[in-house]
Amino acid sequence: MDSSAVTACVLIIGNEILSGRTQDTNLQHIALTLGQWGIQVREARVVPDVEEIIVDSVNEARNGFDYVFTTGGIGPTHDDITAECIAKAFAVPLVTHPEIARMLETRPAPPDVMAARMRMARVPEGASLVDNTTGGPPGFRIENVYVMAGIPGVMKAMLGSLEGKLKSGPVVRSRSVTAFLGESTIAQALAEIQEKFPDVDLGSYPFFRQERYGTSLVMRGTDEATLDATLDAVKSAIIAAGETPQDVQHG
Amino acid sequence: MDSSAVTACVLIIGNEILSGRTQDTNLQHIALTLGQWGIQVREARVVPDVEEIIVDSVNEARNGFDYVFTTGGIGPTHDDITAECIAKAFAVPLVTHPEIARMLETRPAPPDVMAARMRMARVPEGASLVDNTTGGPPGFRIENVYVMAGIPGVMKAMLGSLEGKLKSGPVVRSRSVTAFLGESTIAQALAEIQEKFPDVDLGSYPFFRQERYGTSLVMRGTDEATLDATLDAVKSAIIAAGETPQDVQHG
Repeated sequence: MDSSAVTACVLIIGNEILSGRTQDTNLQHIALTLGQWGIQVREARVVPDVEEIIVDSVNEARNGFDYVFTTGGIGPTHDDITAECIAKAFAVPLVTHPEIARMLETRPAPPDVMAARMRMARVPEGASLVDNTTGGPPGFRIENVYVMAGIPGVMKAMLGSLEGKLKSGPVVRSRSVTAFLGESTIAQALAEIQEKFPDVDLGSYPFFRQERYGTSLVMRGTDEATLDATLDAVKSAIIAAGETPQDVQHG
Repeated sequence: MDSSAVTACVLIIGNEILSGRTQDTNLQHIALTLGQWGIQVREARVVPDVEEIIVDSVNEARNGFDYVFTTGGIGPTHDDITAECIAKAFAVPLVTHPEIARMLETRPAPPDVMAARMRMARVPEGASLVDNTTGGPPGFRIENVYVMAGIPGVMKAMLGSLEGKLKSGPVVRSRSVTAFLGESTIAQALAEIQEKFPDVDLGSYPFFRQERYGTSLVMRGTDEATLDATLDAVKSAIIAAGETPQDVQHG
């Protein structure tokens, strides 16, 4: 893998994903968005709302990747423990951020409601804010860890606000082509093509549709010319196997 | 948490999930299915098609949880490396399973195609098979690690074949109710209810629909009577806040 690559780990925090109650869609959005920005998601973890596990996961991830993006657990209720876990991971106090506090205080509320709302102003000492253009309270950043909401619409707004503000490596581009061929039929040719183009990541993803077996061949890499050469080789292999390359896409 | 709980970790193996090209849906299905069987998914990891990472993740997971379920990487192409990684994780040789080999040999093919197909007969020494009722080659099990296909339809068939064959703990049941209330409004009441019923996991999941903010309150636990008492307390809190409990569900 390219040593100039900028990498990320996504931490999805929430019992509701692990119980199966909620289908996560945040990972895909984050992966596609960061990919366009030249940041490669190399791992994702779904962890429960358990302090020790969140703290350990954050520490492993922030040491192993250029960036960490978390989703979930930053609301006002007792089960929102992400901010305090991040503070513990960095061994810094959890403090009230004056800017968020002012924002929350503009809407009047009874004392107990305001107290709950103020939970959302708590950030690890030294954190800066991640804008929330949906109007709610912001997320935050500390060092290389970005803490975002779990609600997809709010997460998207927070992530979007980071465009142009992160360091980036080469953007991974893709080519793909499908063929109505069993994978085994072209497996040997694919292995040879992968060997010939080691800088391209060549994946084969079988499917069953229109009552037929087929496979999608996906090439990913940072050099457009090498990708095109790989695509040509894969198309030739499909033709040599007696089928027609279909649905060629450049990404 | 209940010490009689039976736990699982899900390992989703595949670059296509991390690149965002494919939206994973396997985790949700596995979590819901295992949940019904009395097995709690406590963590999930999405890892790339990189040997060292897969080996390390399998070893961490199999030592940390009662069960590990993997998806992806067991096809016939060069990028299908799960079987060899699992063998490495267990430090056993990768061998050809005679039963799978016989199954694959029944369909005639040219030598190179048959050779590719035979990749799917390779299992770690000592592995047993996980049935694949879709007609394709099976998955396999070694100790507490179950290795399944990534294609959702095939994964479902493999997982389904394990029904009644796994050890199980208490089944986690749920109650849920929604209210058109901001979370902060009932945050204090929810914290008090959580404190009163420590064996119940009470989660609050905000949403925005019909142009209004609301929240879903979800209670999870193994004792039906305690869940019902918690639900009553949450409904009372919603009513005390001037709203109407809606969409009560028992799961």
